[in-house]
Amino acid sequence: MKIQSKVVLLHRFARSYATTGGSTVQHVAKFEGVPPQSTIFSLIQPTGNIHLGNYLGAIRSWKELSESDSPGSKFIFGIADLHAITLPKDPQTLKRFRHEAIASLLASGLSPEKCTIFHQSAVPEHTELSWYFTCITSMGNLNRMTQWKSKAQQVQNSSIYDDRVMEATKAGVLCYPILQAADILIYRATHVPVGDDQSQHLELTRGIANTFNHTYKTKFFPIVKTLLTPSKKILSLRNPSKKMSKSDPDQNSCIYVTDSPEIVAKKIRKATTDSIQGPIYYAPEERPGVSNLINVISGLTGKSIDEVVADLHWVKDHKQFKDHVTELIVEEFRENREMYQRLTADISYLDEVCARGRDNAREIASANIAQVRKLIGMD
Amino acid sequence: MKIQSKVVLLHRFARSYATTGGSTVQHVAKFEGVPPQSTIFSLIQPTGNIHLGNYLGAIRSWKELSESDSPGSKFIFGIADLHAITLPKDPQTLKRFRHEAIASLLASGLSPEKCTIFHQSAVPEHTELSWYFTCITSMGNLNRMTQWKSKAQQVQNSSIYDDRVMEATKAGVLCYPILQAADILIYRATHVPVGDDQSQHLELTRGIANTFNHTYKTKFFPIVKTLLTPSKKILSLRNPSKKMSKSDPDQNSCIYVTDSPEIVAKKIRKATTDSIQGPIYYAPEERPGVSNLINVISGLTGKSIDEVVADLHWVKDHKQFKDHVTELIVEEFRENREMYQRLTADISYLDEVCARGRDNAREIASANIAQVRKLIGMD
Repeated sequence: MKIQSKVVLLHRFARSYATTGGSTVQHVAKFEGVPPQSTIFSLIQPTGNIHLGNYLGAIRSWKELSESDSPGSKFIFGIADLHAITLPKDPQTLKRFRHEAIASLLASGLSPEKCTIFHQSAVPEHTELSWYFTCITSMGNLNRMTQWKSKAQQVQNSSIYDDRVMEATKAGVLCYPILQAADILIYRATHVPVGDDQSQHLELTRGIANTFNHTYKTKFFPIVKTLLTPSKKILSLRNPSKKMSKSDPDQNSCIYVTDSPEIVAKKIRKATTDSIQGPIYYAPEERPGVSNLINVISGLTGKSIDEVVADLHWVKDHKQFKDHVTELIVEEFRENREMYQRLTADISYLDEVCARGRDNAREIASANIAQVRKLIGMD
Repeated sequence: MKIQSKVVLLHRFARSYATTGGSTVQHVAKFEGVPPQSTIFSLIQPTGNIHLGNYLGAIRSWKELSESDSPGSKFIFGIADLHAITLPKDPQTLKRFRHEAIASLLASGLSPEKCTIFHQSAVPEHTELSWYFTCITSMGNLNRMTQWKSKAQQVQNSSIYDDRVMEATKAGVLCYPILQAADILIYRATHVPVGDDQSQHLELTRGIANTFNHTYKTKFFPIVKTLLTPSKKILSLRNPSKKMSKSDPDQNSCIYVTDSPEIVAKKIRKATTDSIQGPIYYAPEERPGVSNLINVISGLTGKSIDEVVADLHWVKDHKQFKDHVTELIVEEFRENREMYQRLTADISYLDEVCARGRDNAREIASANIAQVRKLIGMD
């Protein structure tokens, strides 16, 4: 299996774990921490205040990675503001979201001492490299990208020239996977911690790196590895058939890292579970609400599903179960809320963190783009 | 006519003139030189040594424009090296072509004192702005672009997912008109001197400027005017049914600005004409070779076709006619050849000119991209 050899699991979570899709990702490589001289890279979209799903899906593992003892390794985590505008955004909202995203990363415990924290748009080498890649990426590859395909399928039975759909669809929706490849490769990243919904884009990134290396007779770009972190797809508390989302009209469905203990308790209390009595067990199809909360515990404690369920032997009813979940969340986010509020009130400090991150990022990016330009014949 | 109001003819050539396509572009606006505070912008592809077609098609009019007395106007002319790589290029060749293109511009009389002369790739704001535009440009607009359409038509009767064509077609071929819009608008150019084969791309540029202004409630981007220069489509000397091209296997078909007088004389002597006796007259369909040479004279002298033909009353035969053409070309390029050879041997001087041009260009581009970022909400 070509993909599996490029998939690496974090040691701590290197047991099997279930995704909400029902598939089980097996341990594929024993992984003892981050190898020396690695470059770990990832971006998160600026969608405002982050919720439990974002936190357990990405940021918590970024923090753990950046705290690993790995000589010479770099940890580069940023805000994907250039991707945010592939769908129209009000400028004032985007501006606020960018600040809030940085504050959320810091409040979640990412340290500007240990990681490069920055806005993608502050490093113009991303878009420059993206253009070089646009010239070597085939339309066939872009057409196979899932998000684009779902757009294109709207016109598949008619014609690509269907006016209404094509007028409404912006070129950014087709081209953003190329920019993603440039995001990763401008830092010559070796590992990207992402959920398995991004595996197609990572495969495209590897393809682009290979094509570039082949075209320009070089080994400049590494073939990046997917770092399968214990990211949990956390579902809506009120309707566990869909993902937790801040745009859910029912705000009880979504817990923010900045919610007060009272709000957390209220939202968990109102979480949809089931009427099955007796011991708590994990069964995503039969007990989606309960299984979602087990996933939350597993994400927060770093324990496998089996361990979590075994640990819950003392639980007598849903109330005890929910109280336990509430306690874990409140404990995890005890300091986040206060810190987040302090940070969002201190824009100049956030700007300072971003400026420092940008300088770090550009130091790497500008050296790499200079090499790329030489290889292409631009210098 | 919406387009006509955006078309401006240079005064000196503000008579009607024929294009090789057989259509006649009428004088649409009396134009007394370059208006004050204009920004005139254009790029040329780096295809190595430039030929008579490039010269009369673009560079000669750039020189004339830059010498016009227009207070506060800027003249920005560059090498489109980012566009050159939409088709695969050997790095060593691209590197050489970039140098030769700059040397050709200087040898053709463009002055670094009067114009900004630079490589597009040295100004990363082009690709940054291009990404912002990618997010607001509809797929429908890109699909209507002629060059792309001819690619897409290969699969029109099958499916967009046709593998072979789509694998061979790179995304750059679809997306380059967006980069062209960014090239122009990053300088907020007011006038672009191009041939009428570029009118569709200019129309897209206006559309993108309008969409951006509308989306972000601003008037930041001007609606650029096409500056119809007396650019002549110069045809192959040996086969006047196709354009003059440096890739023509018959090198007698193509005169370079650096050809020696003897070579020019030989190539013109071998130029295909016809066996019609008597006075020289202009008739592209009946006398393509003779009409092509009349176009050359018109381009070199700035006279209209009618004037050129009237001036040729003394010509008795094809030999006299060809000698006259040779004399005009040799006279025009007398100093170019020597200067070109001096320049291509002095890479450090070329680099100096480009560095100065890049600094000038980036001063404008970085101020404009900062404004764009503010408008979008990135700052």
